[in-house]
Amino acid sequence: MERFMIIGERIHCISPSIRKALEEKNPEPILKRAKEQIDAGAHYIDFNIGPAERNGEELMTWGVKLIQENFNNIPIALDTANKKAIEAGLKVYNRENGKPLVNSADAGPRIDLLDLAAEYDAKCIALCAKEGIPRDNDERMGYCTELLEKGMMLGMDPEDILFDPLCLVIKGMQEKQMEVLEAIRMMTEMGLKTTGGLSNISNGAPKDIRPILDSAFLSMAMANGFSSAIINPCDKELMKAIKSCDVIKGNILYADSYLEL
Amino acid sequence: MERFMIIGERIHCISPSIRKALEEKNPEPILKRAKEQIDAGAHYIDFNIGPAERNGEELMTWGVKLIQENFNNIPIALDTANKKAIEAGLKVYNRENGKPLVNSADAGPRIDLLDLAAEYDAKCIALCAKEGIPRDNDERMGYCTELLEKGMMLGMDPEDILFDPLCLVIKGMQEKQMEVLEAIRMMTEMGLKTTGGLSNISNGAPKDIRPILDSAFLSMAMANGFSSAIINPCDKELMKAIKSCDVIKGNILYADSYLEL
Repeated sequence: MERFMIIGERIHCISPSIRKALEEKNPEPILKRAKEQIDAGAHYIDFNIGPAERNGEELMTWGVKLIQENFNNIPIALDTANKKAIEAGLKVYNRENGKPLVNSADAGPRIDLLDLAAEYDAKCIALCAKEGIPRDNDERMGYCTELLEKGMMLGMDPEDILFDPLCLVIKGMQEKQMEVLEAIRMMTEMGLKTTGGLSNISNGAPKDIRPILDSAFLSMAMANGFSSAIINPCDKELMKAIKSCDVIKGNILYADSYLEL
Repeated sequence: MERFMIIGERIHCISPSIRKALEEKNPEPILKRAKEQIDAGAHYIDFNIGPAERNGEELMTWGVKLIQENFNNIPIALDTANKKAIEAGLKVYNRENGKPLVNSADAGPRIDLLDLAAEYDAKCIALCAKEGIPRDNDERMGYCTELLEKGMMLGMDPEDILFDPLCLVIKGMQEKQMEVLEAIRMMTEMGLKTTGGLSNISNGAPKDIRPILDSAFLSMAMANGFSSAIINPCDKELMKAIKSCDVIKGNILYADSYLEL
């Protein structure tokens, strides 16, 4: 079995220091966060430039080259709603260590990002939502099937589509959590790969509790087959939980030192 | 839904201080460990006197009365292979706060402990094993069905039987872990209650890693429906994982202070 895949979320325009670095095209803060995440075990580095309507193409090209050239062509998740910016990033992407990951298509207005992923032989996150939050798993699985069918019609390998059930905040949507976990199980039973933005879970919870809630949810999700997540790999508690679940699932061989590897 | 049920394992004759206290009929070490576990959130206190072939009846009677009289008739798990000692304990047990729990019947030589549990309207742990470790889940589920049928023939409420899939050590039986988790899911889908000795999981692993491995396994097990476990409730990390899974499952209402409750 494959190890759980970690997509590092920390290069995100919502962070003030990253926003400033993107505005000034200052490599240092970006490279620093890329290094921290790679050292902590990230397999993909998410590069989120926000809507980037003005200069998205230029910014994505710059960022993808910057990170890949400095870190041995580490795989990148190209993260923006600007389709042209994604395409620009795909054009300069180096595949030496893995396909690019488009973040993300959905079953609504962003469905054409799947076309782009297919055209460039990229992986693609497929958010199982259309407008807002799916009412229930019937709706969620409907979008999942729709996205899967479209991807296959476009000639994509289903393994290259990472289905995102849309993780929801516990504080306010506590009663929805088991449904999301159940969706992960259904997708897994269909043979699909899954992913999701884990930090949604503990949004608004006290800072010291967030890693505990996130770790519990992620362990439960891994029991149901969850195969990757968009997380902060510098969260040591969370990484310990992921590695332990990988040991229990037999994805990595147990050794007394497994947490250090 | 019901909260996860915690059976505190720390009054066990394998511990030198408890063994000595049992030999000398010294209440202090026993009461101290009972209090620590109750304060930490144990719902049942396991009272393990080992094989106790010589003075089991006297010892079990003494211990059950001692713990219940000092702690508001807290429910007790009566833990010994000596059937007469269990019966002696059942006779003096006070049911004010819950039925006694017989620990444990199995599908082999200890199957008659189920008769005893039925006779005294007690709960009973039913270990899904006969001689050694079940080869696979076919064998495990075969014992589960056998124990369920016997319990029902004896007039027991299936809710009073806690099926134990037999948790196995990761260090040496890593490839068996997902099978045990799958058995918990199958038992849950049959509508059955489950339990298990969690600390088996991390036996032999470095001390600082044990709570991490145990927490990951228990969270995965709770995703699959695991409804109770025999644990050390003074393991704070493990208790945080259990409470968080209970929040995710909707068994307890989320509040920013949920870890303190």
